[in-house]
Amino acid sequence: MLLDPYGVAVAVPHTYDRWAAARPGDNAATAMKSVVADPRCYDWEGDRPLRRPLVETVIYELHVRGFTRHPSSRVAPEKRGTYAGLIDKIPYLKELGVTAVEFLPVFQFDSQAAPKGFVNYWGYQPVSFFAPHHAYGSRTNALAALDEFRDMIKALHRAGLEVILDVVFNHTAEGDAGGPTLCWRGLANDSYYTLDRDRSRYADYTGCGNTLNANQPIVRRLIQDSLRYWVDHMHVDGFRFDLASILARDEKGHLLPNPPLLWDIESDPLLAGTKLIAEAWDAAGLYQVGSFVGDTWQEWNDHFRDDVRRFLRAENGSVRSVAARILGSPDIYGHEERTAEQSINFITCHDGFTLNDLVSYDRKHNEANGEGNRDGTADNLSWNCGVEGPSDDLTVEALRNRQVKNFFTVQLLAMGTPMLLMGDEARRTQRGNNNAYCHDSELSWFDWSLLERHGDIHRFVKALNAFRQRRDVVTEGQAQSLNSLLRRARVEWHGVELGRPDWSETSHSLAFTLRSLRGRFLFHGMFNAYWEPLTFDLPPLLAEQAWRRCIDTALDAPDDICPWHAASIVGQPRYAVQPQSVVLLALALDRTSE
Amino acid sequence: MLLDPYGVAVAVPHTYDRWAAARPGDNAATAMKSVVADPRCYDWEGDRPLRRPLVETVIYELHVRGFTRHPSSRVAPEKRGTYAGLIDKIPYLKELGVTAVEFLPVFQFDSQAAPKGFVNYWGYQPVSFFAPHHAYGSRTNALAALDEFRDMIKALHRAGLEVILDVVFNHTAEGDAGGPTLCWRGLANDSYYTLDRDRSRYADYTGCGNTLNANQPIVRRLIQDSLRYWVDHMHVDGFRFDLASILARDEKGHLLPNPPLLWDIESDPLLAGTKLIAEAWDAAGLYQVGSFVGDTWQEWNDHFRDDVRRFLRAENGSVRSVAARILGSPDIYGHEERTAEQSINFITCHDGFTLNDLVSYDRKHNEANGEGNRDGTADNLSWNCGVEGPSDDLTVEALRNRQVKNFFTVQLLAMGTPMLLMGDEARRTQRGNNNAYCHDSELSWFDWSLLERHGDIHRFVKALNAFRQRRDVVTEGQAQSLNSLLRRARVEWHGVELGRPDWSETSHSLAFTLRSLRGRFLFHGMFNAYWEPLTFDLPPLLAEQAWRRCIDTALDAPDDICPWHAASIVGQPRYAVQPQSVVLLALALDRTSE
Repeated sequence: MLLDPYGVAVAVPHTYDRWAAARPGDNAATAMKSVVADPRCYDWEGDRPLRRPLVETVIYELHVRGFTRHPSSRVAPEKRGTYAGLIDKIPYLKELGVTAVEFLPVFQFDSQAAPKGFVNYWGYQPVSFFAPHHAYGSRTNALAALDEFRDMIKALHRAGLEVILDVVFNHTAEGDAGGPTLCWRGLANDSYYTLDRDRSRYADYTGCGNTLNANQPIVRRLIQDSLRYWVDHMHVDGFRFDLASILARDEKGHLLPNPPLLWDIESDPLLAGTKLIAEAWDAAGLYQVGSFVGDTWQEWNDHFRDDVRRFLRAENGSVRSVAARILGSPDIYGHEERTAEQSINFITCHDGFTLNDLVSYDRKHNEANGEGNRDGTADNLSWNCGVEGPSDDLTVEALRNRQVKNFFTVQLLAMGTPMLLMGDEARRTQRGNNNAYCHDSELSWFDWSLLERHGDIHRFVKALNAFRQRRDVVTEGQAQSLNSLLRRARVEWHGVELGRPDWSETSHSLAFTLRSLRGRFLFHGMFNAYWEPLTFDLPPLLAEQAWRRCIDTALDAPDDICPWHAASIVGQPRYAVQPQSVVLLALALDRTSE
Repeated sequence: MLLDPYGVAVAVPHTYDRWAAARPGDNAATAMKSVVADPRCYDWEGDRPLRRPLVETVIYELHVRGFTRHPSSRVAPEKRGTYAGLIDKIPYLKELGVTAVEFLPVFQFDSQAAPKGFVNYWGYQPVSFFAPHHAYGSRTNALAALDEFRDMIKALHRAGLEVILDVVFNHTAEGDAGGPTLCWRGLANDSYYTLDRDRSRYADYTGCGNTLNANQPIVRRLIQDSLRYWVDHMHVDGFRFDLASILARDEKGHLLPNPPLLWDIESDPLLAGTKLIAEAWDAAGLYQVGSFVGDTWQEWNDHFRDDVRRFLRAENGSVRSVAARILGSPDIYGHEERTAEQSINFITCHDGFTLNDLVSYDRKHNEANGEGNRDGTADNLSWNCGVEGPSDDLTVEALRNRQVKNFFTVQLLAMGTPMLLMGDEARRTQRGNNNAYCHDSELSWFDWSLLERHGDIHRFVKALNAFRQRRDVVTEGQAQSLNSLLRRARVEWHGVELGRPDWSETSHSLAFTLRSLRGRFLFHGMFNAYWEPLTFDLPPLLAEQAWRRCIDTALDAPDDICPWHAASIVGQPRYAVQPQSVVLLALALDRTSE
C-alpha cells in the first residue's frame, strides 16, 4: 500500500511504524493512507493571497507546534501546538510588528524519521507534497486538519499576515536504501530519485539519504502542481525552498545552467507575486547565494548572518563586510537589476543557536541529541559574553541583553528583508543545543513566560518594527534595484572622526550617514563593537536643526529606543557610544516629517 | 501596434501591408489586430476529442482552402475554400476510408509572406499560435471564423474523423532583420528568438529568417499553452510539429539531451492521448528520425518515402531497405518499446511532388515560382515512366496508373501509420511543381473532376483502406511494440523461389509470407519492380486450402483489388507477376474468417 503522490490529506494510523514500512510484507494495517477530498469544498469568504510587497515585509520563522505547545501559551489544552492554537496568537504577531509567518514544514511528514528513541520535530521529512501535516490539527480526522489549516490561513490574512511555507522538494522521508517504502519509491523509483552512476544506490546531495530528481519531467510537474495547489487552493503567499540548489541539478546531479523547474516556477502566472525564497545551497557543494537562477527569487543570505555575528563579537577584519551587509549586500546583489529585498537578512533560524544562545554559548551543547555532541555545526561565530550558559552575573546578563538589542537593530535597520526567529524577541533558549530537530519538548517550544522576564527585549523589537515600517529608508515606494537605491541614499561612512571610516583589520567600529528614500530624513548610525567606549564626531547641522536619539542600546528601557515624538535632542557635536552598543540618530529634513 | 501573443482571433484589414509593417511609423491603420473573445462561449453539444488508437489511424493531409476552392468541388461559391466548405466534403473523406485529417497550418498566418507578386498559400508563416486563420472563414467577421472552425471540428468528430493540426513553432512570420514587426519581436525580441552569438542577428535554423527560442521559459510556456488551448477549447486530436527538432535546441542553438519543452508536452495530462507527430529534423543539420526525444511521439518517416520510391522505380540496392519499411522500419524503431505506429509512413506530402507527378516527371518544373526553377528539392527519386509530363501514350498512362496503385498498396499494407496526400487518390497534379507554396490557384487546388477520369484509382484506395481496417495484421488489438509484433507475425521472405529472397544489388523483386496478429489469416505478397514479368513459387497449401487473390495491380479494375468474397481462387502453385506490379494473396486459416 502506497500513498497517492497527489493525495491532499493523509491519515496516520496509531500503528504506523516506519521501521516496519521498510520490511517486505502486507502493510495494509499499518501504512499511512491518502484520504480523498475535494479541495474546492471550503468557504474562503473572499480570502485571497495578500501579495504584500517585499519592501514592507518582515518575516517571522516559526514552528506550528512549538509556537503554542508550551503550557505557558495559555492556549486551550486541546488546541496547543495546532493550527487552531496558532490563531489565538495572531494578535501577538500583529503587535510584534511582523508581516509574514514562515512555517517550518507543514507538508505531512514522518515524525518517526529520527534516530531510535527520538522524534522528528522539525518536519523536514515529507511523505506528501499536498497534504497538510495531520498532527498539527486539533482533531484526529484527517479532513478536519485540512479545514483547520485553511481556517488558520484565513485568520492570518484577515490580520494582514502573510504565510510562507518552508517546502522540502529536495528529498523525501523514504530515506536511503534501508528506508521505508511509502510512496514514490514504490511507484517509479528511478524517475523520482537521482541515482548514482551505476544506478544501484541513491545519490545523496541532501544529507538525508536520497535526492529528489527534481528536473525529471514528471517530478518537475509534481513540484509545480504542488506549488500551484498551495497557492490556488490553500491561499499561501510564498515558499522557502529547503536546499533549493538541488532543484538546479539534472538527473545525473550536474548543475543545469537553466534548470527547467526553476524557470517553470518563476514564469508561472499563478505563482507570480508569491514570495519565492531559496536556501541557495545544498549538502553536496553547490553554493549559489547571489547567483541563484532567475530574476525574482529571494535568497537566504548567510553572509548577513555570519558577517553581523563576526562584527558584533568584535572579530578582526569584520568591518568592511558588515558595512556591505547593512547596505543590502551590494557585493552580492549589486549586479543586474536585483533589489535589496532579494536578500533575506537573518541572524538566526531554526537551524543553529537561538539569539539568546548565540550570546550565551561559545560552543554547542547537543548531548541530548544522542550523538555524543557530534551533530550540528561547530562554527557558530557565537560569544558567550564571558560565561558559558545561564549566568546570575548582572554584568554578563546586561551585556547579553545589549548584544541581543544590537543584533535586532542591525538586522531591522539593514536594507533587505529581515527574518526573525520565533522567540528571539523573548530570548528563547535551547540550552546551547544548535540542532534541536529531534526534540518535541520544552527544549524546542516557545516558553511564553520569557516574555515577562525579557519584556524590554520584546518592547525593543516591537519598537524597531514600528520604526522600520514608519521610516522611508527602505520600506517606502516601489521595489527598485539595490544599485539605484544606494545612489539615492548617498551613504557616507565615518569613523570616530567624520569622513574617516576605520576599515583596518583591528577596527571594531563604524558610523554612517544616509538620506532616506524620499529625502525627508537624515540618519546617523554609530556601531561600537569594541570593549571600550568610543566618542564619535557628529555631522554638523544648521543652527535650527538638531539630531534626535532614536536608539542607544547602552541605555535601559524605555530610553534604549524611542518613538520620534519622544526622542531626546542631542545637543553636543560629539556622542559617546558605550562598549558593545549601537546608536541611531535621526534628523527630519522637513517639518511635516516631525 | 502589436498582436497579443495570446489573442484567440485576429482581424486583418484590407489595407494590411507586410512591407509597410517592416518600416517604422504609426501602423494603427494597417496592422493586424487581436480580437477579444471568450473561447468558452461555444456549444460543443457534448463533443470530445476522439482519441482513436494509432493502430486504426489513416491520416489524410489536406489544405483547408485547396480542398474545396476549385469550382469543381460543387461547394456553394461563398463556402469554397473555407472551414464551412470542408464540412460538405466529410462524406467524401468518410467514404475514402481515412480516419484523420491533417490540416496544413491553420494558425493565423501572413499570406503576404512570399516573394513579391506571390502569396503564401501553404501557411507556414504564423502570426498567432492561438487564432484560427481568418481567411478560411466564409464570413469576414474574425469571431465568426472561430465558430466556423469549431463547427467543422464538431462535424468531423460526428463522422468519426480526427483532426490533426500542422503546427509551426519553429519560426514566425516576422522573418529576418528586414521583416515586419507584428508581435513577438516588438515585445521581447531576445526572449522569443534565438540570436547569433554576437546577438546582432537572428539564428536561422529554419530557412525562414528566424528561429523561435522554444526552450526559453516564457516561449516554452506559450507553446504549451497554445497546445492546451487547441485541445481544451478547440477539441483538436493531435499535432504535427513542423521542423520539430528546433524544439530540442537551447537558446544558443545547441541540442538539449532532455529538452524541457518536449518533455512538458509529452507529460502533460491534458495532451495525453493526443497524437504528437514530429517532423524530426530541421534546416540546420539536426536529424532525429528514430531518436526523437520521448517515448510516445510519432515521427514522419522519410526513409519510408525514399526507400519505397527507390524500390518502385527499380533502383539498384533498394530491396533490403524496402523490406524494412514494410515491416514498420525495425532498423529505425526496433529499439526500446517503440510501436510500429510511431512511424508515420508517407510517400508524398504537401512538400514535393504529388503522387501523380512522382510517376510523371523525372525533374521538378518550378518555373512558375519565379526563382528560375532553383527552389524545391532536386532529389525526388521520381520516374516519369518514359515521357516527361502529361502523355497521350496509353502504355505510359497504364504504367503510371499501375505505379500509383503499387505505391498505395505498399503504403497501406506496411506496418505503421499511413499518411495520404490530398488528391493523390485522383492523381492530382501540380504540373511537375514540387514546391507550390506560393500558388493559390488551380495549380495547388484539388480538381474534383479528376475523380471521374481516375475513378479506378479512387476505387482502389477506398478498397485498400477497407481491407486495411478489416484485416487483423496491424490494426487489430492494442498497440504493442514493433519487436513483439514482428515476433508474432512470423515473417518469411522469398524470391521467385520459396525461402530464397534475392537481396542482391540488382534485385528488383521480393515476396513474403506472414501471419496475421490473431493467426486467422496468412498473407502472401509479391513485389515485382522489374521491367520483365517474374513467376513466383507460392507456399504449398493443404488439399482443402486455396490462396485467394486480393490484389494484382497489373489487372484492370475491378480485378485489381477485390473484397474477400469476390477474390478469385488461385489454383496454380506459381504466380506470374507482371512488370511493375504488386500482388497480394490471402488464406483464411479458420472458417469464421471467410
